[in-house]
Amino acid sequence: MSRLVMKFGGTSVADLGRIRNAALKVKAEVDRGHEVAVIVSAMAGKTNELVAWVREVSPFYDAREYDAVVSSGENVTAGLMALTLQELGVPARSWQGWQVPLRTNAAHGAARIEAIDTTLLEQKFRQGLHAVIAGFQGVSPEGRITTLGRGGSDTSAVAFAAALGAERCDIYTDVDGVYTTDPRITKKARRLERIAYEEMLELASLGAKVLQTRSVELAMRYKVRLRVLSSFEDGPGTLVCDEEEIMESRAVSGVAFQRDEAKVTLIGVADRPGVAAAIFGPLAEAGINVDMIVQNISEGGATDMTFSCAVDDVPRAERALRTARDLGAIDWRELVTDTEVAKVSIVGIGMRSHSGVAAKMFATLAREGINIKVITTSEIKVSVLIDRKYMELAVQALHDAFELERAGG
Amino acid sequence: MSRLVMKFGGTSVADLGRIRNAALKVKAEVDRGHEVAVIVSAMAGKTNELVAWVREVSPFYDAREYDAVVSSGENVTAGLMALTLQELGVPARSWQGWQVPLRTNAAHGAARIEAIDTTLLEQKFRQGLHAVIAGFQGVSPEGRITTLGRGGSDTSAVAFAAALGAERCDIYTDVDGVYTTDPRITKKARRLERIAYEEMLELASLGAKVLQTRSVELAMRYKVRLRVLSSFEDGPGTLVCDEEEIMESRAVSGVAFQRDEAKVTLIGVADRPGVAAAIFGPLAEAGINVDMIVQNISEGGATDMTFSCAVDDVPRAERALRTARDLGAIDWRELVTDTEVAKVSIVGIGMRSHSGVAAKMFATLAREGINIKVITTSEIKVSVLIDRKYMELAVQALHDAFELERAGG
Repeated sequence: MSRLVMKFGGTSVADLGRIRNAALKVKAEVDRGHEVAVIVSAMAGKTNELVAWVREVSPFYDAREYDAVVSSGENVTAGLMALTLQELGVPARSWQGWQVPLRTNAAHGAARIEAIDTTLLEQKFRQGLHAVIAGFQGVSPEGRITTLGRGGSDTSAVAFAAALGAERCDIYTDVDGVYTTDPRITKKARRLERIAYEEMLELASLGAKVLQTRSVELAMRYKVRLRVLSSFEDGPGTLVCDEEEIMESRAVSGVAFQRDEAKVTLIGVADRPGVAAAIFGPLAEAGINVDMIVQNISEGGATDMTFSCAVDDVPRAERALRTARDLGAIDWRELVTDTEVAKVSIVGIGMRSHSGVAAKMFATLAREGINIKVITTSEIKVSVLIDRKYMELAVQALHDAFELERAGG
Repeated sequence: MSRLVMKFGGTSVADLGRIRNAALKVKAEVDRGHEVAVIVSAMAGKTNELVAWVREVSPFYDAREYDAVVSSGENVTAGLMALTLQELGVPARSWQGWQVPLRTNAAHGAARIEAIDTTLLEQKFRQGLHAVIAGFQGVSPEGRITTLGRGGSDTSAVAFAAALGAERCDIYTDVDGVYTTDPRITKKARRLERIAYEEMLELASLGAKVLQTRSVELAMRYKVRLRVLSSFEDGPGTLVCDEEEIMESRAVSGVAFQRDEAKVTLIGVADRPGVAAAIFGPLAEAGINVDMIVQNISEGGATDMTFSCAVDDVPRAERALRTARDLGAIDWRELVTDTEVAKVSIVGIGMRSHSGVAAKMFATLAREGINIKVITTSEIKVSVLIDRKYMELAVQALHDAFELERAGG
């Protein structure tokens, strides 16, 4: 009998009516002959409420207690979903993370999954009982409840799909798939039938908030076929799969963007070995998520170092760099920040075999009169920093230039 | 080091401010040198919300899923209380039932405690960590979450007090102790300094809703000294203890009452062995909680059988009795119901050594012109059924007659 993992996010189980709607989708798959493991999030808003309580009580909270509190929302949904399935004639029971058990390390609040023991689940499947599993949670070596970080239910779902050898992991959400770009930017945005793990990973980390990045990494590692689809309308969604499952890849699959970026440049940095470590070490310690990094030759034995980060991180980044300079760890002539930039990226596994993709991107932006401030590239993506006010224009122009509104690929 | 169990009910932890207020009381006991185990209920209203969801989803719900859902409220409070204590400088951690573990049988929704393994708790006490334990919940032999029935947190608290050898179990609630009668009926009602387990048990089951009956039974069996006191005002509360700790017991300690009673009489029942079983068997099967039972000789080899039950149970009781008659299991001439009665009881361990207590009760009621419909007695209580409209009057008259407004005893 084939197995299926079906994951429902917070908006898909926001109230009893939506839980019933989700349960009907589960019943349909059960009726098609699948053994189903359902992974549920907390009802929309519940986790935020619990997090707010924890923060109000204890601003620098004990993460073990945070986990004990915030994991409770998923337990409620799991029980209610199991009951709803039973009412629909689908034999089911709920599982909390520790009951499975899903074992994690002790990094409370952002725990990593170490192992899923499926013995008990398998036993119940053999008895005809479908599983409803509270997402987002596990149990530490010490027997305390852990959580996997915000959005962790996606990761739970993929991990269970891998552990149970599921044919597919269906992620039900409030969008009907992965798009070539955000439909709010251009109406020509089109749902992709299929997308490769690597592409999804770039899109996820570039700001397309459909799937948690970690869940895509995990799916790629264990070759779990992921399907992203809507809880609220019927449709095939988007299959995230191995690139071998994608017939003919086009050069570019999607255009991603990140609006609130900032550019920080250190001018006149002494150009000697270890200088990059001296700069980025303190930034990492300060918890700054540095994204693009570019180093240019500067005049007189010095170099210019530019990096991008989130706008909100700029004050802390400046403070960390000035402190490091005061301590004599680094030196520079000038620190320049630009908080009015955005990042636009084109992503596609086809870039590997198509040449001239980057050149076409630059030409397109030039034609629109958009100045490029920083460029970085990887095997399957090209990213540029541009003035924020041109962001929508750039996305629209690139979407047109690479003909993403056309189906195929 | 002496141990204390402190239990806070739903109104005592209804919001973050009240949790802090409760935590301050815990801190005071910790500062006095106690090792403390705090037992918490769900925030007021939470359990009702969860129960309503379960019932809406599934009217004849799977009790295992009911337990998985409704137990979550206590987990939230336990985590928040542990965090609040930490903020006050009291080292503490939360425990869910399965983490302790508190083992129960598999009677989901109303599970019985089978054992509390205190090994881990003791280990953490030795490390200086006070315990915050989610009340109301345990784990079944199969590893599923169980709950102890509504109000079960009192039972949790007493069980932990027994298992941990606590010096006392303090039950914080929204009243400041156990009263000689309900202060809403007479302003002369007085808080008792001490009350014996047996008396408390009679008062609890007679409608004084301060403590769950089971928790008092458990306290009596394990000689756990219980103190009932208010979360919202300072005061000594009432100590529920062994009668040996009560110096000089007076004849009557309190007057209890139950307003919504009904009297059902079967007239002309054939008087032969087994007739009581034939009547009360079907009532038990129908889930009717029969309270007082009186049998009188009737004319011509027949007998009259009278019992009391809750007004709401009368239609089901009538149906069960008529069905039993249709099946030929019993026979009677007439079935008479009176749904306008109330029960009033006087309770006191001193009755054992004081004579004439019942006579004084009857004389008091006669003086007020109140007709007694049914009488039952036990070693430490006398109960009567009277017309409901005289209930307040009867309680006031008995409170005066036995001079309960006077301290002492």
